[in-house]
Amino acid sequence: MTTDNTAPELIVQEWIGANQDLSLQSLRGKVILVEAFQLLCPGCVSHAIPQIKKVRSHFPESDLAVLGIHTVFEHHEAMQRETLTAFMHEYKINFPVAIDKPGVGTPIPQTMNLYNMRGTPTTLLIDKQGQLKAHYFGMIEDIKLGAEIAKLIAEPTE
Amino acid sequence: MTTDNTAPELIVQEWIGANQDLSLQSLRGKVILVEAFQLLCPGCVSHAIPQIKKVRSHFPESDLAVLGIHTVFEHHEAMQRETLTAFMHEYKINFPVAIDKPGVGTPIPQTMNLYNMRGTPTTLLIDKQGQLKAHYFGMIEDIKLGAEIAKLIAEPTE
Amino acid sequence: MTTDNTAPELIVQEWIGANQDLSLQSLRGKVILVEAFQLLCPGCVSHAIPQIKKVRSHFPESDLAVLGIHTVFEHHEAMQRETLTAFMHEYKINFPVAIDKPGVGTPIPQTMNLYNMRGTPTTLLIDKQGQLKAHYFGMIEDIKLGAEIAKLIAEPTE
Amino acid sequence: MTTDNTAPELIVQEWIGANQDLSLQSLRGKVILVEAFQLLCPGCVSHAIPQIKKVRSHFPESDLAVLGIHTVFEHHEAMQRETLTAFMHEYKINFPVAIDKPGVGTPIPQTMNLYNMRGTPTTLLIDKQGQLKAHYFGMIEDIKLGAEIAKLIAEPTE
Repeated sequence: MTTDNTAPELIVQEWIGANQDLSLQSLRGKVILVEAFQLLCPGCVSHAIPQIKKVRSHFPESDLAVLGIHTVFEHHEAMQRETLTAFMHEYKINFPVAIDKPGVGTPIPQTMNLYNMRGTPTTLLIDKQGQLKAHYFGMIEDIKLGAEIAKLIAEPTE
Repeated sequence: MTTDNTAPELIVQEWIGANQDLSLQSLRGKVILVEAFQLLCPGCVSHAIPQIKKVRSHFPESDLAVLGIHTVFEHHEAMQRETLTAFMHEYKINFPVAIDKPGVGTPIPQTMNLYNMRGTPTTLLIDKQGQLKAHYFGMIEDIKLGAEIAKLIAEPTE
Repeated sequence: MTTDNTAPELIVQEWIGANQDLSLQSLRGKVILVEAFQLLCPGCVSHAIPQIKKVRSHFPESDLAVLGIHTVFEHHEAMQRETLTAFMHEYKINFPVAIDKPGVGTPIPQTMNLYNMRGTPTTLLIDKQGQLKAHYFGMIEDIKLGAEIAKLIAEPTE
Repeated sequence: MTTDNTAPELIVQEWIGANQDLSLQSLRGKVILVEAFQLLCPGCVSHAIPQIKKVRSHFPESDLAVLGIHTVFEHHEAMQRETLTAFMHEYKINFPVAIDKPGVGTPIPQTMNLYNMRGTPTTLLIDKQGQLKAHYFGMIEDIKLGAEIAKLIAEPTE
């Protein structure tokens, strides 16, 4: 018996840099990396964003989908849509980014809450069947992240 | 005969992180470093800001004044006051920062225009007599910057 | 029809940091990484050696064998056995290292010649069946190297 | 009354990369930086040597003399003259290096002992009058080192 650990859909206010709305369901069959960040989070800017850009460049789109999600849980006024789009332009973000839907009566946005994220950066890995296989808070070594993605890509499609 | 090259006063909308309004005139007798940056400028965030924080920590306040100026010349809506103050909090900026006064009929703010800055980051060094001694656009090596500041500090006060 | 590209055995003068002589044949069933380096090669010391130490720490011994080979092709007098063993001690090399057998009538040592290596660092990847799958000269990104090793590990054992 | 803290002459077996034997006395009038290192010391290779090369490139020869001294106190057989000269070639050392004279009945070489150095890397700064002004063991920030050298250069020559 296998435990079902299907990754729940992201709760999204708006997609930036995507041709259309995206869903985890529609990406079934690919490995998915979801990177949760805030544009004013120093560890995200210095480490996670450059790392995920390298990941995006290394693996083909047909094997790996990379999604960002802007999970603002502090300084909300400072990180609005206009600032995010300018950030994505200046940092040459090469993957679509969702704006996490703001919480109601809480500073924590809805996807962040749904996934019990502890802060930013957070990296999620979802396998081809949609199962959540890894949830990291903070920095991950490039070798480890590259290896874990490749391992999921190598798994049979079903 | 010496050419007068007195650094003109910064044209400031508001000071953030200062107990009072500051002027170059009031700092006469100290060496002054002015760092012009934008919070969404990658080179500022990865290189210039950490460098100037190290400079601030190395030299005593009695020898060197360090001033930032937020010279927004693009993505104006993205880099408003609230975003700047949150940025200063998250990046632990340990020196006062002026908001450069917006230009009239031009995206270039007034101090940036006055000093003919070419972009961000820009680093200015002003000697104890208020003379502008150096104007750098882009990255400077730490050894060079440390040496140039120390040289100006070593000059007689007059 | 599959082309046979079996990795030829290393031609070794002596193993350092190994409990016994090693052979590629005896490691069949594991993925093997062979790192060719010289202790006075700056790119090896600053990049390749730290990278391979991280690789060694990330993957279990049961999945991946890591072997170094000291392929001295210049400054031969400067990089003798005593210098190599001291280097391995100071740099905390956590994998066995072979001394490549010196060439006869040529500065190029025998394994380096056998594999047509262009210089150092050179990284070889050998699959579980002993086939040479990758041959890199110079720097490789951590994400890429981690991914390629993981992909080979994920292949069926036969 | 000023304490005399004249830097004693280096005790040198041989100079490498110098046109002639050098002495601190003959360099009187310039600031002198002496860098003590071992070619198999990881902190020297990754940090101190690149730093001193940058120092050498930044300050003119007329203001600052830069001298290396190879103070071998461990793995003596591994770091002989031939290995040092190959190291200097591969790492493009752009300043003369003295071989510290081996100790008699002790692994500690004579200059290292004379200056009570605690290990490598060690950085010494000597002023224009030949006074030892700083003695650092381990890493120094570039800003600090650049500033200290510039301060000594700015002092009157007599």
